[in-house]
Amino acid sequence: MELSSLKIVVDAMGGDFAPVNEVAGSVQALREHDGIEIILVGREEQVRSELARHAPGNLPVSVVHAPDVVTMEDSPTAALKQKRKSSLAIGMNLHKDGKADAFVSAGNTGAVLSASTLILGRIKGVSRPTIGAFFPSEEGVCLLVDAGTNVDCRPQHLYEFAVMGSIYANRIFKYEDPPVGLLNIGEEMTKGNEVVKEAYQLLKAGPLNFLGNVEGRDILRGKVRVVVCDGFVGNAILKFGESVPSFLKAKLLAYAEKSVLRKGILALMRGSLRSVFREMDYEEYGGVPVLGVNGVSIIGHGKSTPKAIKNMILKAVEVAQANLNQHIQEMLAGTSVDSSVSVPAHP
Amino acid sequence: MELSSLKIVVDAMGGDFAPVNEVAGSVQALREHDGIEIILVGREEQVRSELARHAPGNLPVSVVHAPDVVTMEDSPTAALKQKRKSSLAIGMNLHKDGKADAFVSAGNTGAVLSASTLILGRIKGVSRPTIGAFFPSEEGVCLLVDAGTNVDCRPQHLYEFAVMGSIYANRIFKYEDPPVGLLNIGEEMTKGNEVVKEAYQLLKAGPLNFLGNVEGRDILRGKVRVVVCDGFVGNAILKFGESVPSFLKAKLLAYAEKSVLRKGILALMRGSLRSVFREMDYEEYGGVPVLGVNGVSIIGHGKSTPKAIKNMILKAVEVAQANLNQHIQEMLAGTSVDSSVSVPAHP
Repeated sequence: MELSSLKIVVDAMGGDFAPVNEVAGSVQALREHDGIEIILVGREEQVRSELARHAPGNLPVSVVHAPDVVTMEDSPTAALKQKRKSSLAIGMNLHKDGKADAFVSAGNTGAVLSASTLILGRIKGVSRPTIGAFFPSEEGVCLLVDAGTNVDCRPQHLYEFAVMGSIYANRIFKYEDPPVGLLNIGEEMTKGNEVVKEAYQLLKAGPLNFLGNVEGRDILRGKVRVVVCDGFVGNAILKFGESVPSFLKAKLLAYAEKSVLRKGILALMRGSLRSVFREMDYEEYGGVPVLGVNGVSIIGHGKSTPKAIKNMILKAVEVAQANLNQHIQEMLAGTSVDSSVSVPAHP
Repeated sequence: MELSSLKIVVDAMGGDFAPVNEVAGSVQALREHDGIEIILVGREEQVRSELARHAPGNLPVSVVHAPDVVTMEDSPTAALKQKRKSSLAIGMNLHKDGKADAFVSAGNTGAVLSASTLILGRIKGVSRPTIGAFFPSEEGVCLLVDAGTNVDCRPQHLYEFAVMGSIYANRIFKYEDPPVGLLNIGEEMTKGNEVVKEAYQLLKAGPLNFLGNVEGRDILRGKVRVVVCDGFVGNAILKFGESVPSFLKAKLLAYAEKSVLRKGILALMRGSLRSVFREMDYEEYGGVPVLGVNGVSIIGHGKSTPKAIKNMILKAVEVAQANLNQHIQEMLAGTSVDSSVSVPAHP
């Protein structure tokens, strides 16, 4: 299995700046990395004219026409029913039909999730596909899963999220036997609501490196590599975390307002703060995968820059090569308890 | 009603550094502010010997003996049953019996909450007493309620939290008609689980300045002054937020490690960062009140410094004077819809 054979579908109409950033990011990915082919799906004329601006020469990029566009305002389920010729639906079907190895979109998260689930189907043993979020920590990356997809969860769902997150942390972030924590309001196993208490027992009996309950503070501390919670809590933490950099900037600016000296110091600080905030930036992580579907589907932020799109494409390549889904299926079926053994991709 | 008549019970055995910080903070409060009397409750000999070190002279402070101590490890309910002569139980009963106007403790949060609820009783109309948490924001203080007390909530509970939080924000933080938000995973009223959808309707029909759903990012942005959620989510966000300063310090130190210039810049930054982090510091807020009980009970962090204890005592004075409970009872009974009208305290 070589990089050279990987075809990635890019939803050219997905993000807030589509198709401009989608095309620019695709061209960047192709120029900087060998062995990727990209299929841009979207309104052909618009996409081709955008592509022409980058003088793609003989880069391995093709365009597939899709007249409809799913917008950020569309209801996820209605969008799939009503816009059957959207770039999302046509692109996802190309992947499903084996004409591409992965699908990438910076579009409507709910719609991409629905399309991934309905068109690609769930992996055997997975009750609910999920989307996680990446946090920086004092010790490495921490994957929080679920980050907003499933607001009401049963214990089994949390268990499955843990399995999928653990395999992702192992295969993509290369953490050996990644420690997993269950988000709770205290470390004692008697804490929390009924759902987390039962999930605790499932996780304790399972094959993962389960460290028990963790609290909100353990995410940035880096106590574990995977934190499991329902999508309501996960979404609240994710969005709270996203607001920290701009809160700090506003407070520092207000502080600096009061003297020239302070302004000077703030100017000097810029580099160091930027370096820290960069770690908290979604662009660096190259989007998040839909976990639990029969395929590789990567979702990015609507505001994705060309760089973010490029990173999503590279992430899609990495995920496609890692053969996550077979590992997930095996672990949920109980046929494999060792997620660190490498299995060749596309066998 | 004058400050001079206010008696505050301080649980001298509560915090991690009891009775040292409790006594020091009490003496500080008495030295810096007129018109407060303090009753220190705890092991008399220990408390008196600590007090002697501060040469209290004729400061209005007395000591009431309590042989038992509730520790941080004690189960809240068991502690109340088994340690009937704890500083917590004896101190709370002094308040209940009208011998003091408020109770303050840096002890076991769960035990203080249980004692407040069981000994003082609930305000009429309140199903579940609650504890909130204060967040700094770009626009002012934001009160998140519940912050960990009630992990499973029904819509009515969330509604009551909103009423109590709103009255607190109005009477203590002096925000007129404080805007209230319901924490959810999106702004649309169709988002979230069944509990928040129903709570949305209750809040919409109620007398508060309800702005609708808010997301995790709206807390630090300061979109509203009160954010309502169940204690599971609230606790996760609170603890995540508490971990932000040490995460940033660790990252900045790692960044500064790499050159002398960076070290110099970090040294210069210290003042500005300290100023921002101070806002994120529990000590500045003087503890959190137990909302919904028939009395004034203020809980502080176990690690409370003398300054934090002092601020808790001052907060207790403020809350006792604000007559919150009558406002809460009236609003929940529907007899008052205007929380900004001042009612004389202790009529």
